[in-house]
Formats: sequence, structure tokens, C-alpha cells
Amino acid sequence: MNSKKLTHFDDNGAPSMVDINEKENTVRVAIAIGKITMSSETLKKILDMKIKKGDVLLVAKLAGIMAAKKTEQLIPLCHSIPLSYVKVELTPDVQNSCVNIKAKASLVGKTGVEMEAFTAVSIASLTIYDMCKSADRGMIISDIKLVHKSGGKSGEFNA
Amino acid sequence: MNSKKLTHFDDNGAPSMVDINEKENTVRVAIAIGKITMSSETLKKILDMKIKKGDVLLVAKLAGIMAAKKTEQLIPLCHSIPLSYVKVELTPDVQNSCVNIKAKASLVGKTGVEMEAFTAVSIASLTIYDMCKSADRGMIISDIKLVHKSGGKSGEFNA
Amino acid sequence: MNSKKLTHFDDNGAPSMVDINEKENTVRVAIAIGKITMSSETLKKILDMKIKKGDVLLVAKLAGIMAAKKTEQLIPLCHSIPLSYVKVELTPDVQNSCVNIKAKASLVGKTGVEMEAFTAVSIASLTIYDMCKSADRGMIISDIKLVHKSGGKSGEFNA
Amino acid sequence: MNSKKLTHFDDNGAPSMVDINEKENTVRVAIAIGKITMSSETLKKILDMKIKKGDVLLVAKLAGIMAAKKTEQLIPLCHSIPLSYVKVELTPDVQNSCVNIKAKASLVGKTGVEMEAFTAVSIASLTIYDMCKSADRGMIISDIKLVHKSGGKSGEFNA
Amino acid sequence: MNSKKLTHFDDNGAPSMVDINEKENTVRVAIAIGKITMSSETLKKILDMKIKKGDVLLVAKLAGIMAAKKTEQLIPLCHSIPLSYVKVELTPDVQNSCVNIKAKASLVGKTGVEMEAFTAVSIASLTIYDMCKSADRGMIISDIKLVHKSGGKSGEFNA
Amino acid sequence: MNSKKLTHFDDNGAPSMVDINEKENTVRVAIAIGKITMSSETLKKILDMKIKKGDVLLVAKLAGIMAAKKTEQLIPLCHSIPLSYVKVELTPDVQNSCVNIKAKASLVGKTGVEMEAFTAVSIASLTIYDMCKSADRGMIISDIKLVHKSGGKSGEFNA
Repeated sequence: MNSKKLTHFDDNGAPSMVDINEKENTVRVAIAIGKITMSSETLKKILDMKIKKGDVLLVAKLAGIMAAKKTEQLIPLCHSIPLSYVKVELTPDVQNSCVNIKAKASLVGKTGVEMEAFTAVSIASLTIYDMCKSADRGMIISDIKLVHKSGGKSGEFNA
Repeated sequence: MNSKKLTHFDDNGAPSMVDINEKENTVRVAIAIGKITMSSETLKKILDMKIKKGDVLLVAKLAGIMAAKKTEQLIPLCHSIPLSYVKVELTPDVQNSCVNIKAKASLVGKTGVEMEAFTAVSIASLTIYDMCKSADRGMIISDIKLVHKSGGKSGEFNA
Repeated sequence: MNSKKLTHFDDNGAPSMVDINEKENTVRVAIAIGKITMSSETLKKILDMKIKKGDVLLVAKLAGIMAAKKTEQLIPLCHSIPLSYVKVELTPDVQNSCVNIKAKASLVGKTGVEMEAFTAVSIASLTIYDMCKSADRGMIISDIKLVHKSGGKSGEFNA
Repeated sequence: MNSKKLTHFDDNGAPSMVDINEKENTVRVAIAIGKITMSSETLKKILDMKIKKGDVLLVAKLAGIMAAKKTEQLIPLCHSIPLSYVKVELTPDVQNSCVNIKAKASLVGKTGVEMEAFTAVSIASLTIYDMCKSADRGMIISDIKLVHKSGGKSGEFNA
Repeated sequence: MNSKKLTHFDDNGAPSMVDINEKENTVRVAIAIGKITMSSETLKKILDMKIKKGDVLLVAKLAGIMAAKKTEQLIPLCHSIPLSYVKVELTPDVQNSCVNIKAKASLVGKTGVEMEAFTAVSIASLTIYDMCKSADRGMIISDIKLVHKSGGKSGEFNA
Repeated sequence: MNSKKLTHFDDNGAPSMVDINEKENTVRVAIAIGKITMSSETLKKILDMKIKKGDVLLVAKLAGIMAAKKTEQLIPLCHSIPLSYVKVELTPDVQNSCVNIKAKASLVGKTGVEMEAFTAVSIASLTIYDMCKSADRGMIISDIKLVHKSGGKSGEFNA
């Protein structure tokens, strides 16, 4: 790993967008995960709401999908890419009093989609916080990481 | 905590923006934190870069500040608010091989700024990931939480 | 009505934003409505989905709320305004095979919120179209109009 | 029509972006129309302005074109697509005291452009409302529908 | 002038948004100007178009107004501010073969509107370039500067 | 040059996006330049800051890169294009008391990237103004022009 350079800097050390003109158009996939931990009462509220009509998890899922499409406006050196697909899954875990978040992004293109998957996970988790914060300000978002990446020159990554 | 309802739902349980017309304009402050853990070699690269001219931490700081201004476009039921101030601090921690992130947001207004502080922390940490991912895809973002909130009817919160 | 001028033009007839510096901060409310008509089978699909977990109407409601916050980016001469409240209601009408859409917007400010209410209605109806278009490309959006406006110098309007 | 499923939901009924990785890049065209009805005096004002220098219809046309480019930010499950072309035509109809709006969008890509055409029609009509609302708050937007669609697996549609 | 510090840096020299919580709400006005010089034939084309129906200058004017509203998304450390007014004037100058651009912005608020006036001038001039570039790629944009600023602690400025 | 028409207008003289469906995907490159002139004391402040930790030029560089990605949202008739590369160089010139700005943009696509390079130059220069305006309101932005363009049917341009 030692020999890998940070590609977002040019030869003078100035931050720079990576030039992807010469890169190949291949299918690229990335999956990121994370979780938001809360009091058991807050999780119960989320699950109860769902039985009625309000649905914290559905709002968070949509927020994650929509945010993935804005990744290049949020991360300074990301490229604008035409995403083919974003999927956000939110799985309540009563035993650990948390909601697990998983986002998958893919496209046929010249650069990877890790940041789109990460952005979906981050904004979905923040949306859960926002919608529950009146009841519980102690929620914690953690373990946001890449679990899979394929396509492109750097090959496959699995955590 | 049990009696607190989720205010982002109306009486029928449908998700809804909170009506802040009647709320008072007061000074509101929020501070959120988080961290991104990486290999010691990656952290060394960040610190070395800084000695040259490229500066991962400065790019991440700006990304966090700019993202805070976009919070209401990212979190579905957040209000558009005229932020008075956003500050993002990034502190490398060599011993724990991580960068600590802290964001403070404030305004004089009718609603709180927690989500703006959270968004700054989240996007700053994703930006560090983006800029270092060519060297290290195993970085983990964690412990994103609110540490302080003041102003408004719900009073002061300190974690 | 004859004597009212179009305020979005200056004395030379050039389009211009209205100067609201001198206007008073008052509570302003606007309610707009509209409807989307579809085949009875499509409406049945929407209602059935709802019984499961997918919810066309909830997605459309969120899209309407989020779009209201972007009104000033969409309508060239609208002002940026800090909305206090947006509510979008979607009511299926089986007899007329349509979904009725109603949006209410309000703020304390110097200019009205009609366009925010209209934008919420328009984008909520387009979202229903988008989510059902694979089944029914003949849906029609109609009767988008203002039904109430209060606050500001021009006084109350009720259709 | 009965057998067509709503493609914006996954097998569990959760809303989901359609995966277009496998779709072919073909020329895709969509044309949507709509109209805004107003008092004859308001229409006369629009036409008179045009003889001077202010031009409600030109502002509305530009607003429609610019909005088409933002479709994916407005409609939650739309894909980001590189539009090749958007054209918005606004035709005053003195006899029926309305302005007819027609938008055509096209691209070479993996997914259709109906929503882009619809968004252009909707925002162009809202812009006319905005620019004339000081004179006439009773304007009505109606008959927004798809009149043509070609390209892609689902084939040609003509209303 | 020597003693004035750069306020966009904190005491450690790190870039930072200025905290405006304590600032007063006053009427603030800024006027910026600039010009775009072109071949006399290009200017003639712009003026001729105007006599027909296409209107380069009207499109540029609208682009300037709309861009002013996006200033805080473009300039990293600018505040989100609710502009009360933006006016863009474009004056062809046949003798010097250029178009002069002037933008005025104002609001009642806690921070100035210079950057909004500058952004309007810059994007209006780029829009003229874009619309004429097929005929003339040698156009030059110059002399963008502040000519007036009033309101706020730093007082009045006139160039 | 006389015979070249303005391509952003249709046959009736109405402003229109150029249809690029039939255009070829080729490598396209554009380089634009500009400069911002200031008092020698202000330039000294920028250079001194850099020796500490604050870095006006790095913030401006990032602002330019990020703005290039927003070009199609700013220039009304520009196409949404997936940029492959943006580079912004800022070179202080002590002798002439200015900072020279140069931006290069490229992509493989159906339309050129001049406006992206221009937008990067313009917003980078405005960001320098913003960050130094507390010390020097007399700065002037000038000589923004295209110096190179290649790719596409209109061929190579060098100023």
C-alpha cells in the first residue's frame, strides 16, 4: 500500500481532479454500509410509525437515493457521472437498537461509484437522525465503510 | 423521553415539515463531531502532503462548510435557513490513526442548526475518504454525534 | 383588474425582480391545488402498493415538499425565501379516477408564497406520473390553481 | 395494460431507481404539452409587453429549458441524463384566452426523456403564472400530458 | 489599508466563514460592472437579433439574475442570504464594440451583497459569450469591478 | 466570420438549445484565462497567508473546479456534460500586482467545454475577490478569454 500515491494531487502537490478521458467505460459497482444507533424507545417509535402511515425509513431511503445523485456537487473533486442505479436498504435491528444502512450504486462509465454509495449511506442516516431528533438527540452514526467495489483498473475490493 | 413525539409527522402519521412560523428568532448553536480512521501510512500521507502544498484537510474543511449550506436540499424535511456561521475543524490523531472532525453551526432564527453541523461533519469525512481512497479503501467513518446544542424551546443539550 | 400592471417588468418593459426591501415582514400563506387523472387500473395499482410497502403517494408528497424549497431556483424572478412550512396532501378519488393534490406554504416574510405552493403541486403530480408511467402513459395533470392567499399588501385571495 | 407493473418498486414493494446498466443507448424523444388559461386582459398584457421589450413568453421558455436540465434533482427516482436537446414552444391562443406550451426533449441514452419534457412544460407554465400573478391570480394550468415518445424497449407512444 | 486583515481566515490562518450572528440587519446595496468586447460584426448580430425575436441580451440578463441567487453555492465562504432585489442592465456600445454590464443587488440583512452583484455580472457576460461563440471565439470579458457599496459597518464605497 | 450564424437561435430567432444528438463523441479540450489585479499590499497578504496555513489561492482553485461542474445550471442554453477533467492554475505575478488564472477542461463528448473553462476562471477570480475584499475593494477582474479549443466540427482555435 505504501507505494500508492494520492491521485487527487498533481505533481506539484496541488489538489486536482483526476483526468478520466483515457479511462475505459466499464460496469462499475460499489456497496457501502453504515448504521445509526439509538435508544430502544426511539427504534420502537420508528417501527410503530411504520405500522401507521408515517415511515421514517422510507423518507430516509429516498433522501439517500436523491443525495447519491448530488455527490459531485458535494465532494469537490468527484466527477459528474450518469448513475445507472442506486439502491438504499434500511434494516432495523431491534437487538442492537440500531438501523443498518446499505447502499449500492452502479454505472457504465469511466470512474467508480464509491462516493455515490457513501453519500447515500451518510444522508440516509442523517435523515433518520433529523426525523427522530425531537425524541432522541443521543443517536450515533458509525461504521460507514466500503464493503464492495468492482470494475475499473484498480480491480475488485471486498472488505 | 418516552412521551416525546416525532415532530416530523402530522396527526395522521404522514411525514411533514414542522411549521416554524410561530417560533421565536433566537441564537441557536450546534456542534457535531465524528472521525475517520485509516491506516497509519495513509495518515502519514495526509500529513506529508500538508507539508508540501496539497492539503487534504483544507479541501475537506471547505467541502464541509459548503455542504452545510446545502443541508436543506439534502435532508427532506429540513427548513431553508440563513446560516450565520459554520466552522469545521479537522484534527489528525497519530496515536489513534484517525482524523477527528468537529463542526459548529449557528444562526439567529426560528429553528435549530443540528443538521447543518452534522452535514458538515459527514461531507468533510467523505471528502477525506475520496481524496485518499486510491491509497486506502479500508477507511472507516464513525462516532458521528451531537455534542452541543443551545437555543430554542427544547433548551440546551450537551453529550 | 385592467389597471394592474405586471410587476415583474421595470419601466422600460425589461423583466426584473421586484424590490422587496421596503416590504413588511408579515405572515403569508398560500394554498394551491391540482389533480392527476389516470386509468382506474393505475389508481388501483397505487392504492394496492400502499397496502404493501411501496407508496407512490408518499414519494410524491416528499418530492413536492423538497421542490417547494427549490422554487427560487426554478422560477427566474422569484426571491429566495426562508419557508416556514410546506404541507402536501394527496387524496385518491376512486370515483373520478384521479389523485387530488393540495399544497400549503407559509412564512413570515416580505413576499408571498404562491409559487412555492404551485411548485409543490406540480412536482408532486409529475412524480406520480413518473412512478406510474410504465403502466399508464395517458395520465393527465390539470386544474392547477391558487385557492387561497393571505398576507401582504395585495390582501386575501380566495378562489 | 393490466399486466404492466410499476417499475419504480422492487420485489418487496419498496421504491427503487430502475437499473439501466443493461439498457441500450438509443435515440429517445419525448414531447409533452399543457396550457395556462387566463383572462383575456392578462393575455393582452402578455402580447402587448412583447411588442415593447419585456417578454413573458421568452422568460417562460428559458425557465422551461433550464428546469428540464434539473429534472433528476426534482423527481426522486429519475436518472441523471445528459440531455441532447430541449425545445420549448409557447403559443398564445387569443380565441381560448390561453397560452399553449409544448416541450420536446431528446438524447442518445439508456432511459427516456418524458419527465424532462414534462418538467419543462410545468415550469414554463408556472413562470407565466409568476410573471402575471400581480394582474391575475385566477389563471389555471391544465391538460399537461405526453403526446409523443419514441426510442427504448417500450416503443413508440402517441396520444 | 495596511492594517485591514483578511476576515475569511481565523486566528490560525485557516479559512473560515465570518460569523454574522452579532451583525445588524441594515439595508445593504452593491453595484458591480463589467464589459464584454467583441467584433463589430458580432455586436451587429446581437443588435439585429433583437429586432427580430431572439434576444441575446434578455437571455444574459435572466442568467445574471438567476446566478445572483446561487452565489452562496458558488463562492465557498459566502453566506446564504435572502436577496431582496437584483437588477442586471446590459447596454450595447457600438463605438467601442462591446456590451456594458451592470448589476445591482440589495437586501436587508447582516452581510453585504457585493458577491451577488459580481456573480450576476460574471454570468451575464459568460452567457453572452456562450450565445455568440459560434460566430466569434475572440470575445474578451474585462473590467469587472465594484462601483458602489453601502450599508454595514464598513460603510460606503464608491469607485 | 460574417457568414457564421448564432447557433443558439432557431429559424424564427427564438433562443434554443443546440441539438447535439447527431454530433460525434470526440475528445474536446478548452483552456480559458483571466486575471485579477489588486494592490501590492493585498497580493502580499495572499502570499503571506500561504506561508502560514490559510491559502486564498487553494480555496479559489477548488471554487473554480466545483463551479465548472455547475456550468449547465448557470448558462441557460449549455448542455449537461460529464466533464472528464478540470484543472485550475493560479499564478501570482508580483511585478504586475495580480493573480493570473488559467482553467483547462476536457471530456469525450458531443459538445465543447469552453463554457466550463470560462466558468472556472470566473468563479475562481470572484472567490479571490471575496476572500480579500475586507482589505481591498478596488480589485479588478479582466482579460477573461479563450486561449485554446480543440475537438469537434469547428476545429481548433488558438488565441
